[in-house]
Amino acid sequence: MIRIAVDTLGGDNGSAPVVEGIIQFLKDNKDISIIAVGKKEELTKLEGLCEIVDAPDIVPMEAGPLEVMRMKNSSMYKTVMLAKEGKADAVVSAGSTGGFLSSSTLLLKTIPGVNRAAFIAPFPTKIKGHYVVILDIGASNENSPEELKQFAVMGELYSKYILDVENPKVYLLSNGTEPLKGSPEGKEAYKLLKENPHFMGNIEARNALAGEADVIVTDGFTGNVFLKSSEGMAKMMSGFFKDAFKKNLWTMLGYLHVRKGIKNISEIMDYKSTGGAMLLGVNGVIVKVHGNTDAYSMYCAIRVAKKLVEKDIATKIKEGI
Amino acid sequence: MIRIAVDTLGGDNGSAPVVEGIIQFLKDNKDISIIAVGKKEELTKLEGLCEIVDAPDIVPMEAGPLEVMRMKNSSMYKTVMLAKEGKADAVVSAGSTGGFLSSSTLLLKTIPGVNRAAFIAPFPTKIKGHYVVILDIGASNENSPEELKQFAVMGELYSKYILDVENPKVYLLSNGTEPLKGSPEGKEAYKLLKENPHFMGNIEARNALAGEADVIVTDGFTGNVFLKSSEGMAKMMSGFFKDAFKKNLWTMLGYLHVRKGIKNISEIMDYKSTGGAMLLGVNGVIVKVHGNTDAYSMYCAIRVAKKLVEKDIATKIKEGI
Repeated sequence: MIRIAVDTLGGDNGSAPVVEGIIQFLKDNKDISIIAVGKKEELTKLEGLCEIVDAPDIVPMEAGPLEVMRMKNSSMYKTVMLAKEGKADAVVSAGSTGGFLSSSTLLLKTIPGVNRAAFIAPFPTKIKGHYVVILDIGASNENSPEELKQFAVMGELYSKYILDVENPKVYLLSNGTEPLKGSPEGKEAYKLLKENPHFMGNIEARNALAGEADVIVTDGFTGNVFLKSSEGMAKMMSGFFKDAFKKNLWTMLGYLHVRKGIKNISEIMDYKSTGGAMLLGVNGVIVKVHGNTDAYSMYCAIRVAKKLVEKDIATKIKEGI
Repeated sequence: MIRIAVDTLGGDNGSAPVVEGIIQFLKDNKDISIIAVGKKEELTKLEGLCEIVDAPDIVPMEAGPLEVMRMKNSSMYKTVMLAKEGKADAVVSAGSTGGFLSSSTLLLKTIPGVNRAAFIAPFPTKIKGHYVVILDIGASNENSPEELKQFAVMGELYSKYILDVENPKVYLLSNGTEPLKGSPEGKEAYKLLKENPHFMGNIEARNALAGEADVIVTDGFTGNVFLKSSEGMAKMMSGFFKDAFKKNLWTMLGYLHVRKGIKNISEIMDYKSTGGAMLLGVNGVIVKVHGNTDAYSMYCAIRVAKKLVEKDIATKIKEGI
């Protein structure tokens, strides 16, 4: 039976939505066992449904690696320790990204042959139902060409086994499509990537979500800027459209006609359903949920963790690297 | 009288829209003289309206610096030479970005104290009528901390004199708001920027267009990714909304109610009206229009060139650096 450890603290909205997400997930998945880690008194609703581990401390958002490793009574540390001790097959947390990254890499270690772990996330594209995975979106501030080459392999395996893309098309995020474009590291990475038969060349940020690419490789700093600028623009555009509909009775009537189409867009753009970001390259399954999580996104994140365990992604990477 | 040299070749749509833009601009601005550079036979409509310089060759999109400098009969080279020889106060081109960048920096040289020129462009924000200028958006592939510090000064002067912002708020694009976030160069730049009284700290890409920042400093590679991912997402969202309206008669009726609001969004998001990207840091006024230019965007670009000359931006930078 797959065992998933869930950190119930550290999210912006406290443990309540996490608890709700767990309850719903256990209702729908009888074959999974959950270990909920957090303040015992906040987890009473889970009694009898799953194992509970008491851990009263919350890792602060901006905790450094040393601080997290010292917080042995924190929900995050205890959650990751469950994986280290072989008591959990996957860990899920909505807490501090930096803290989760440090504790996971320090306690579980990177897979042999992987220099650095990477956060990967699926992005919706113009083509309904098609996702492109982008990595690294923020585990590192910079990456060597060799690391980018490893990211390509990890992304490919993710696309293949988790998103069921048979022959994933891999691209390198750049400022132009020609081989000579890119940051200094990007240009070097291009040379290394040419040996990969799935590598299709450079892609510009404006075409990243057009649906052609299955995997996009980038350093963690640039990937993070890509993620956040896309997010910012999507939010701004949605806001503009909402305002256009809110103007008066006629525009509100107009909304009635297109609401189905708009709902469709919201579904396509719904990052919550994709289960957050996964940390690839460590010995284990690590799923980071957005800090501002609700029950639904926690539910989706646990579902992704389950799939990652089922597909044994860590072993696939071990073999593929 | 302000003299603006316009490269009529090199844009994706040939010289026709450029000629139209010039004609319209001259109609509205009696106090400006234009020098049109390009294939003489394509410029007959301009005879009697402005000076014409025959230059039959087109610099290819992917021309390297050496190639451009050898193409002495190209419209681009001849346009930039007009500025070098003191015959034009500003140059405008929709041709090869790399070629325009190389010829401008090699022929006109950077301003003393400026290590590297930067492309700057105004971006619309959530606040109607408020623009944030971002630089560098693609002149370089990497930038040193010192260069980023200089970009802050140039951006500030642009915001102040061209966009009339009295006390521009300057930010550094990063992957978090804390001082210790960022790429290695970004972290060093933060330390240098702290001395600048207008520097407000790091900004994340998701908040870049929220309206708080007047100037955002970034290296050319990251800036280019920011520009293109914002552009890509804006286009994708617009496409989704258009599809939602096109569905059937009812949704099309719905469109009638909100079309004014939608038009408003298009106006806010209209990159064409902002006149393309300006190359700051060289001795002269250099305006790069989008390759896919139409008459309107060419018109706007010439208007921006005029304003840059009027405000004597190059001298302001010379004094400010």
